[in-house]
Amino acid sequence: MSDTSPAPVVVIAPDSFKGSLSAAEVAAAIADGVRRARPDAKVRLCPMADGGEGTLDALLSRGGARRVLSVHGAAGTVREAAVGLLEDGSAVVETAEIVGITDADGMSVPVEARSTRGMGEAIRALLDAGVRHFYVALGGSSTNDGGAGLLAGLGMKLFDAAGEALEPTPASLARAARVDVSQLDARVAQASFVGMSDVDNPLTGEHGATAVFGPQKGVRPEQIADIDSSLARFADLLEAALQRKARHEPGSGAAGGLGFALRMLGAHFEPGAEVVAREAGLDAALAGANWLITGEGRSDVQTLHGKAPFVACRHAKAAGVPASLLSGAVDPAALPRLAEHFSGCFSPAPGPITLDTAIRDAARLLANEAEQLTRLKYGAR
Amino acid sequence: MSDTSPAPVVVIAPDSFKGSLSAAEVAAAIADGVRRARPDAKVRLCPMADGGEGTLDALLSRGGARRVLSVHGAAGTVREAAVGLLEDGSAVVETAEIVGITDADGMSVPVEARSTRGMGEAIRALLDAGVRHFYVALGGSSTNDGGAGLLAGLGMKLFDAAGEALEPTPASLARAARVDVSQLDARVAQASFVGMSDVDNPLTGEHGATAVFGPQKGVRPEQIADIDSSLARFADLLEAALQRKARHEPGSGAAGGLGFALRMLGAHFEPGAEVVAREAGLDAALAGANWLITGEGRSDVQTLHGKAPFVACRHAKAAGVPASLLSGAVDPAALPRLAEHFSGCFSPAPGPITLDTAIRDAARLLANEAEQLTRLKYGAR
Repeated sequence: MSDTSPAPVVVIAPDSFKGSLSAAEVAAAIADGVRRARPDAKVRLCPMADGGEGTLDALLSRGGARRVLSVHGAAGTVREAAVGLLEDGSAVVETAEIVGITDADGMSVPVEARSTRGMGEAIRALLDAGVRHFYVALGGSSTNDGGAGLLAGLGMKLFDAAGEALEPTPASLARAARVDVSQLDARVAQASFVGMSDVDNPLTGEHGATAVFGPQKGVRPEQIADIDSSLARFADLLEAALQRKARHEPGSGAAGGLGFALRMLGAHFEPGAEVVAREAGLDAALAGANWLITGEGRSDVQTLHGKAPFVACRHAKAAGVPASLLSGAVDPAALPRLAEHFSGCFSPAPGPITLDTAIRDAARLLANEAEQLTRLKYGAR
Repeated sequence: MSDTSPAPVVVIAPDSFKGSLSAAEVAAAIADGVRRARPDAKVRLCPMADGGEGTLDALLSRGGARRVLSVHGAAGTVREAAVGLLEDGSAVVETAEIVGITDADGMSVPVEARSTRGMGEAIRALLDAGVRHFYVALGGSSTNDGGAGLLAGLGMKLFDAAGEALEPTPASLARAARVDVSQLDARVAQASFVGMSDVDNPLTGEHGATAVFGPQKGVRPEQIADIDSSLARFADLLEAALQRKARHEPGSGAAGGLGFALRMLGAHFEPGAEVVAREAGLDAALAGANWLITGEGRSDVQTLHGKAPFVACRHAKAAGVPASLLSGAVDPAALPRLAEHFSGCFSPAPGPITLDTAIRDAARLLANEAEQLTRLKYGAR
C-alpha cells in the first residue's frame, strides 16, 4: 500500500493513561505508530493534563526545571515532593503530587486527619526562591480541609475557644474559634495564583466539596454534615479575618476546599487543560496541521466536561484540524456524544484483553493502533 | 464534523465471526455503522466464507434456495441438514453442516467410528433432483474416513477378507479387503464437483489428513500410524477399482480425506473464498468502489493463507480499492505482516473486555467501530 499524499502534519496531544503511561509516554508511543506508517510525517508532541496527576509532568515537558522539596504529606509525614519552575519564572505546585489520593501514606489516616499543610510549605519555599506567579493544579487530592492546611503552611494560626493552637485538619476545624492571619506570609500579597481546576463547586452545601467529593476520599455518609459545617465554621472565621468572601465562588470546592483558600489569596481559576494547552503551545502546534490525535486512559461522558482530550479537540476545531480520540477505553454508552466532536473514537485494544494486559502493553498497543489509523487516513509509505 | 466529500461507495465483505455472528450479520452491522457516519454512502454487501462453516449461508446470501435433507451425521444418527441450490442450478453441500466438528452428536463417538456417509447421501438426493454441478465446502469436518463414507452414500461397497460388508469408517477400513464400485451411482460420471478448500495436503503420510488434522478431531498420537495406513489401504483398493490415482493430489487430505474421494470422482479444487468471491459477485461490487471492509472473528498469520479476508483484500487490490480489516481480534504478533496488505487493521473492542462481552455485543461494537472508521476516513454528514 503506497500513497503519494503530502507528508501529514500530526499534532499528538494526549492526557496520561492513569496507572499506565504518562502523557509524554502516550504521545511518544502514538508518534512511533504514526511514523511507522508515514516516516515522512511531521509530528508535534503536546502532552496534556487537566490539573490532576500528571499536570506537573505535562507542564515541564516543554522545558523548565523540576525541584524536589521536603514538605508534609496529607498524613503529616515529611516527604519529598516535586514542584516545577517554568521558563517564564512561574511555578507549578501539583496537589496530586503533595497530597494525592494515590499516595498510600496520605491515605493511611482518616480524611478528617489529613491536611494540605505541605501545599503551603511548598508555596512558601518557592516564595523564598523568588517565585511570585503560581499555577496550583487542584485535581487528585486526598484532603478535605478547606485549604486550612495550605494557609497554615503560609503562617496562619488556628485556635480553639480555650486559646489552644489547633492542627489544620477537618477534625480540628470543628473546634476552631479563632483564626490569626497576622503572621500570614506577607509575600502572598504580591504573588498571583492560578487555580487549575475543572470544578465549579462552592466550598460548602449540597454541591460543596464534602458532599460531592468527600465520599471518594473516605468521608462516610454520616460524617458529611459535620465536616461540611466545620468547613463553614472555618470559612466564617477566615472571611471575617481577611475581610473578603470566597466560599460561594466557583471552584472554592475544588481539592477539598483548597480552592477556597486560594480564592481567599486572590487566585483566579482556569480550566486545567486550558492552562496546559497554552503553556504547551497547542495552538501554535495546530497551525498548519492536518490531524490531531488526543486521548486518555478512559473516555466517557465526563470527557466532555473539560477533560484534556476535549479541550484539545476544541482547540483543534478552532484551527480547522480534525481531532481523533485514542483512549485506553471508550465507554460505548458515551460514544454517540463523543462521536459528535471527534473524527473517530478508538481504543488500542486489539480484541478481548484484560485490563492488566492493556496496562502492561499500553505503549505497544497504542503505537500499533496509531499506525493502523494513520494507514487508514493517509496510506503508508 | 461535516464533510462535503462525495458519497463513498463501500464494499463490505467479511467472513463470519465464528460462534458469534454469521457473515451476513457481520456485514449488516458494519453497514449500519458506515451509514450512521455517512447516510449517503452506497453500501454493497458481500458476505464471505472460505469453505468452512458458514459457506452455505454466504453462497445463499445473494439468492438461491435452502433445502433440508435427512442424512446420516458423522456418528450415524439420522439428522436434518441443509444444502443450497444456487440460481445457476448448481448445489452447495457443506461438510461442516453435515459432519461438522462443532456438532455434538457427531463428536460423541470416537473419530475412528465417524463417517461421511451423509455427504454421499446428500449428493445422491441432489442428483435425484437433477443437480449435476456441485460445490463441496470442505472445511470444518469431524471425520477422517478418507471419503469412504461419501462414496458409500453413493453406492460403493466395502468388504473384509471374509466377504463381510464393512461400515465406511476408519476402524473398518483397517480390515477392508475389497471395494465394489459396480453400484456407484452412474450419474456422478455426468456430474462435476468443485472441492472448496484452502488445504494442499495429500491423503496420507506425514503431511496427510491424519497426521496434520487428525489430532484436532481426536486422533490420539499413538493412533496416527494405524489410521494413516488404513486410509492408504483404502486408497490402494479404490485406486485399483477405479483405475485412477488421486491420493497424492493436493487437497486429497482435506476434510479427513473427503478431498481424496472427490478427486477420485474427478473433482477440481478451488480455494473456498475464491469460489465465494466469484459467486457473491465481489469483483462487480468493487467496480467503482472507494473502500472495502472485510474481517473475521480472529485474524492472525493464518489469515494470509487464503482466508476470506485476505482473498477479499487481494480482489480489492486488483480493483485499486483500499481494504481495511475489522476483525473481532487481531493478533498483535501478526500485525506487521497483516498491515502490509490492509489499509489498517482494527478490532471493535472498545477497551479491555472479556471474550463473552465481545461475543454478546459483537453486532453493536462492530457497528460502532465501523462508524468511527468511516468518520475518520470520510468525515460525517
